Amino acid sequence: LNSQKARQFRENYLDLHVYEQAQIFTELNSQQRARLYRYLTAKEVGDMFDAIEDEPEEVVKYFEEMTPQYAANVIDEMYTDNAVDILAYVPKKDLAGYLRLLPTEKAAEIREMLHYEDKTAGAIMSTEYVAIAGNQTVRSAMHVVKREASDAETIYYVYVVGSDNKLIGVLTLRDLLINDDDQMITDIMTTPVMSVKVSDDQAEVAQTIRDYNFLAIPVTDYENKLIGIINVDDIIDVIDEESAEDYSGLAAVDTEEVADNPIKAASNRLPWLIVLLLLGMSTTTLISHYEGMISQASILAIFVSSITGTAGNAGTQSLAVAVRRLASRDEDQPSVYRQFFIELLTGLVTGLVTGLTIFLIVGFWKQNFILGFVIGMAMMCAITVANLAGSFIPNLMDKIGVDPAVASGPFISTLSDLTSVLIYFNIAKLFMKFFMGT
Amino acid sequence: LNSQKARQFRENYLDLHVYEQAQIFTELNSQQRARLYRYLTAKEVGDMFDAIEDEPEEVVKYFEEMTPQYAANVIDEMYTDNAVDILAYVPKKDLAGYLRLLPTEKAAEIREMLHYEDKTAGAIMSTEYVAIAGNQTVRSAMHVVKREASDAETIYYVYVVGSDNKLIGVLTLRDLLINDDDQMITDIMTTPVMSVKVSDDQAEVAQTIRDYNFLAIPVTDYENKLIGIINVDDIIDVIDEESAEDYSGLAAVDTEEVADNPIKAASNRLPWLIVLLLLGMSTTTLISHYEGMISQASILAIFVSSITGTAGNAGTQSLAVAVRRLASRDEDQPSVYRQFFIELLTGLVTGLVTGLTIFLIVGFWKQNFILGFVIGMAMMCAITVANLAGSFIPNLMDKIGVDPAVASGPFISTLSDLTSVLIYFNIAKLFMKFFMGT
Repeated sequence: LNSQKARQFRENYLDLHVYEQAQIFTELNSQQRARLYRYLTAKEVGDMFDAIEDEPEEVVKYFEEMTPQYAANVIDEMYTDNAVDILAYVPKKDLAGYLRLLPTEKAAEIREMLHYEDKTAGAIMSTEYVAIAGNQTVRSAMHVVKREASDAETIYYVYVVGSDNKLIGVLTLRDLLINDDDQMITDIMTTPVMSVKVSDDQAEVAQTIRDYNFLAIPVTDYENKLIGIINVDDIIDVIDEESAEDYSGLAAVDTEEVADNPIKAASNRLPWLIVLLLLGMSTTTLISHYEGMISQASILAIFVSSITGTAGNAGTQSLAVAVRRLASRDEDQPSVYRQFFIELLTGLVTGLVTGLTIFLIVGFWKQNFILGFVIGMAMMCAITVANLAGSFIPNLMDKIGVDPAVASGPFISTLSDLTSVLIYFNIAKLFMKFFMGT
Repeated sequence: LNSQKARQFRENYLDLHVYEQAQIFTELNSQQRARLYRYLTAKEVGDMFDAIEDEPEEVVKYFEEMTPQYAANVIDEMYTDNAVDILAYVPKKDLAGYLRLLPTEKAAEIREMLHYEDKTAGAIMSTEYVAIAGNQTVRSAMHVVKREASDAETIYYVYVVGSDNKLIGVLTLRDLLINDDDQMITDIMTTPVMSVKVSDDQAEVAQTIRDYNFLAIPVTDYENKLIGIINVDDIIDVIDEESAEDYSGLAAVDTEEVADNPIKAASNRLPWLIVLLLLGMSTTTLISHYEGMISQASILAIFVSSITGTAGNAGTQSLAVAVRRLASRDEDQPSVYRQFFIELLTGLVTGLVTGLTIFLIVGFWKQNFILGFVIGMAMMCAITVANLAGSFIPNLMDKIGVDPAVASGPFISTLSDLTSVLIYFNIAKLFMKFFMGT
């Protein structure tokens, strides 16, 4: 391509929103990408990479195609938080190479951020914020804002720091605009500032930003020094990620699977299916223990799926409520013990109504009210136990530090199958001579 | 309380963030609220009501406590989108009263917004935006921004409109700050503007804002006239609402239930449980149809729960993937037919592996490989059918305009129970003389 066409191309391409550029970029083949790197500056590629939605593992491959210097330049131009997300997947030796080619300060920032634990405020914060000293006027603060406007991720919040970079106040750009040019910053800033600690869980940060309708929130270390900010667009991704995890857990499948390949889809789903099948074999073994009873009273076999199914549904309901409650981290929640007590009562009420329903159905259908009573009783007990388990298990998992959302739905169902079968056949055994006695 | 204390109270209360004020407000009793209305201006109460997270039905009750004039003043001070959310729950005659007491323009805006359909862009947009004409300089535009700063919901985007209020461009406040004061707006504005139509689905709006990392997006009517904007904080609520719906659907329970009352919790859950129980009776009836076979070969009964359980899990996985895909409304998705085809293949692969597993387990455990073959075969077919149903049903529901998330998880399981039992006993019937022949 001659230089005329290159200029034309640059113009058209850069006219697009970076998100659209990124969408096109991911469709290119490696040859087309190589040409693109020649046409665009590192800054332009960096801006586009900030908007890329590919998995970090994919983006790493793009870096490998560039010369190390060009890659380092692109990394330098990206927002630190986005760059770090990707660099976490770069092989150790390449990473050292990139960091050597970066400006010292940026390299140090990246090195530090790579150490923050996944899913904490530190891991999702960015370091491109606007901070000013308090002992200046609105006019001079506006100069700082204008100077930083092209680099900062947001200029709509300006953070006021004291000596040692300690966070002491915050202003919105709106505050700066509506106040007089000669006002002192300390007189108009909002204080105290809502902030999060660098080690706070990302879900808690998301909850705070949502509750307060912030566009960003500052991140401080344990000495209250300002070290970064988290923007609302990063929080949207967190909220989506967390709810996708809850949802995936309830169905025992990673719902974000790229399902244009049946083998990949199957290998995503099979591990759960097989584990659940093996767990389910315990129920099968238990039923086989009662095979003698079944061959005597084959009518018992007919209602197994009805009881296990309904108890499983009740357990899943109770589980889903508990998982959402844990996820929302709302403070004015009843205590855990009170929650169990409420679940116990809820289980008894739902069990009673459902048990009564099946008692009437079986009684009239099979003209055998003793059998109906057995099945209704079993249903009620099975539902109550399933309800308690659905509430207890996620709380227990949360206490011991395991994410309660991990494939919990089917596990509750499988567990509740086991207890339901146990309850059912034992109640049936007790009353067998009555309902078979006719 | 004397006036001294009242002033003190005002000062402390207004020092809090509006979200915290709202949190405290909802804890007050009606007497305390009445006193609060006396101490605070309508503007202050309006700001607080903008941050209230109670159900609109609750907030309506607060309005009923105020004098109609005070209530109208509070409504006037609230952002239109928040006010409309609540006014939708006000009884018709009260609504007419409030609207009469409002400034004509505001009343007209509210009247119009009350007509937008639930869950569309029109229903969540706000009308407090900053719009300017293109034929002016940055300096004069900044004057407009400063003037509107206290009323607009966001001043960080400035929309450029032509004659007839047609949307022609957009500027960020950042653009205004970094450009020269004498620049013409039309020279520096971004064009064309990404916008949404007033009737667009809120989930689509959310997706656009997420993809482009916007802080707000303009809403236009069918003549491209600017009529409102949607802010990122409203979008966070939409994303959360939509994912909570998906999640609740998978568990057949409204997970947002206020579970400090077992009777309320039970009445939230019972309808689904009973409906599912009744649907499940079809499976029970079907099994009872095979009671003769069971009494001959009671071993068959042992594996029913294993087959129905695994097929149910597979169906739920496939369903969850399909529902998430429908919810994300991503454009570069494979076509619906291709999705079915992929699910069919995924079902066959997972079914084959799972079937083989259970074949080996049953074969070695019961020393009966023909029985193992029957159960493995049934498992494979049942999983394939469940997979297809899990993918087909949500797509069908979406096509006919029903939200695919409605309690879909347990329905798929129940449906798959029925087909699994049918498949299982028919395969068993075919091979019965072989595995019982020993």
